[in-house]
Amino acid sequence: MRIALDAMGGDNAPHETVKGALWAVQELGIEVILVGRAEELEAELSKHPKPGPKLLVEPASEVIAMEEHPAMAVRNKMDSSLVRGFDLIKRGAAVAFVSAGNSGATVVAALLALGRIRGVERPAIATLFPTSSGAPFLCLDVGANADCRPNFLLQFAKMGSLYMEKVIGVGNPRVVLLSIGEEENKGNQLIVDAHALLKKSDLNFVGNLEGQHLLDGLADVVVTDGFTGNVLLKVSEGLCGLFLALLKGAFQRSLPLQAAAPLLKPALAGLSQLLDYAEYGGAPLLGVEGTVIIAHGRSDAQAIKNALRQAKLAVDGGVVEAIREGFRPKKAVGLSTSEPG
Amino acid sequence: MRIALDAMGGDNAPHETVKGALWAVQELGIEVILVGRAEELEAELSKHPKPGPKLLVEPASEVIAMEEHPAMAVRNKMDSSLVRGFDLIKRGAAVAFVSAGNSGATVVAALLALGRIRGVERPAIATLFPTSSGAPFLCLDVGANADCRPNFLLQFAKMGSLYMEKVIGVGNPRVVLLSIGEEENKGNQLIVDAHALLKKSDLNFVGNLEGQHLLDGLADVVVTDGFTGNVLLKVSEGLCGLFLALLKGAFQRSLPLQAAAPLLKPALAGLSQLLDYAEYGGAPLLGVEGTVIIAHGRSDAQAIKNALRQAKLAVDGGVVEAIREGFRPKKAVGLSTSEPG
Repeated sequence: MRIALDAMGGDNAPHETVKGALWAVQELGIEVILVGRAEELEAELSKHPKPGPKLLVEPASEVIAMEEHPAMAVRNKMDSSLVRGFDLIKRGAAVAFVSAGNSGATVVAALLALGRIRGVERPAIATLFPTSSGAPFLCLDVGANADCRPNFLLQFAKMGSLYMEKVIGVGNPRVVLLSIGEEENKGNQLIVDAHALLKKSDLNFVGNLEGQHLLDGLADVVVTDGFTGNVLLKVSEGLCGLFLALLKGAFQRSLPLQAAAPLLKPALAGLSQLLDYAEYGGAPLLGVEGTVIIAHGRSDAQAIKNALRQAKLAVDGGVVEAIREGFRPKKAVGLSTSEPG
Repeated sequence: MRIALDAMGGDNAPHETVKGALWAVQELGIEVILVGRAEELEAELSKHPKPGPKLLVEPASEVIAMEEHPAMAVRNKMDSSLVRGFDLIKRGAAVAFVSAGNSGATVVAALLALGRIRGVERPAIATLFPTSSGAPFLCLDVGANADCRPNFLLQFAKMGSLYMEKVIGVGNPRVVLLSIGEEENKGNQLIVDAHALLKKSDLNFVGNLEGQHLLDGLADVVVTDGFTGNVLLKVSEGLCGLFLALLKGAFQRSLPLQAAAPLLKPALAGLSQLLDYAEYGGAPLLGVEGTVIIAHGRSDAQAIKNALRQAKLAVDGGVVEAIREGFRPKKAVGLSTSEPG
């Protein structure tokens, strides 16, 4: 399996992207195509033992920066690592693409190069969150669509369910809507309308979930609009960071605590995992005609490797094919029987 | 100063409400009117030393439960502690009202009994959040308005600024919009439109803030719609709860850690304060014609006392008068000068 990696994307590129790709080639049995400035990539590669034929370089002279306007950057930088990476999928030279670069530009480029799966109104970015029960849930959309219509949310639920089935192996995934009350009339108008649609659907919709129970392991798929989902993701990130910083500070100021630190570590593993992108790797972009993984901008080599693994798992699980199949219009079987006798 | 308390409101009423009221009378130099079922309140009071003339009881035979439909409950239970409490303000027998009961019903009853301050389109629930810098910020709306228009957000910003000035003593409070990117074109349509309004306003609007920086102390007033704000509040609550539970579990399982625990406590004070309603007490409902504090449903006596203190501070600061003044239509001065020469 050959996966393309935006070797110039993210805060730590190309140092960490190249290292992550090397690890992925060794550990996951995949081939990786590093897309980016050839001389910079060769310089990085020269620091490591020769990787062998499973690591390839595809030259791209431009780089889209994190703060660039997504649509303009994609339009103007045709020879960027991002645009060239999608070309590789389009040409059939790679089966998936991973980028830790400008995520808005990644969504735009994916839509331009690959297009939406037929029937999907809006692709969504999905993130796995760990829970206190140990089983992760998939939260979507976490940022591709700031403004949503109720039907988008229904489709997110469907795509999320298929992902959890195919990649995580959860049978009949429990779907919830993130809201501000459990009753079906609670929430904003979008959520109330989406609730009605989900209730009528054939998904395993178990109702609304409030934020304080998000990490209790009560759901497999948490559906939200991209604005709320992104706020949720970033607030969680900020809180976890603050918490770990407070703990670290306490330990640094106290020798007896330093002695006890190794005892605390396993207990806090679940915690640091909470928003540890190195653990879960990247966020799949669901609903486009190809496997695309958006990694966190801060990704280190470990996170890049895990994002490449996410890509492999999505390809192995046949996520794109499952969504294509799930969104195919149902054939009208025995049409005449629906006619009155 | 006489403040009415919904003695039947909240998960721990009337046990904790009565205790909190007793503490408030002793410590804050205020008078408290306990509103609720007289016999139950007298029974609670009999457990404590005689409180003296500063603690009064106003009988109300009904109780609105946490899960009741707000508007229906308020309409049907005219003799509830909630409805009777607002009557006391209306009659001038109390200057403020505090409830840890059904918050939706509290908003409905406040609107019915007191009405909106002239010019205010929607009242908002505001919550103080602690930050890593030590100075709290006010976040609003955290739940009164699930669907907002841009102008509501502009008004929330104005009310929040007045509160921070009058109660917390912050000069020229820094206002931000919670969004998913710092640029003015980032966010959903509501946020983009509200950004334009805030930019034109005479408030000290410093731009959008992303969730991961929420607790960094970069703002005094954080403006958001009531859906996002409520999700934010509850997710923070859930995350803090999970952190503390993980830590507690680790300490319980390890004797050396138990020995080190007292060292860790001060470092974690900031953390548990994060969503510790006992510390900050209640959330003011801003924009109605009276001082109303909504306390957390789980409030204990300490939280009730602090909510009563919040009420006292809001009255002392003249928050209602300041909002009334701030929303008064500007008189057209020198009208003729605006006419073309």
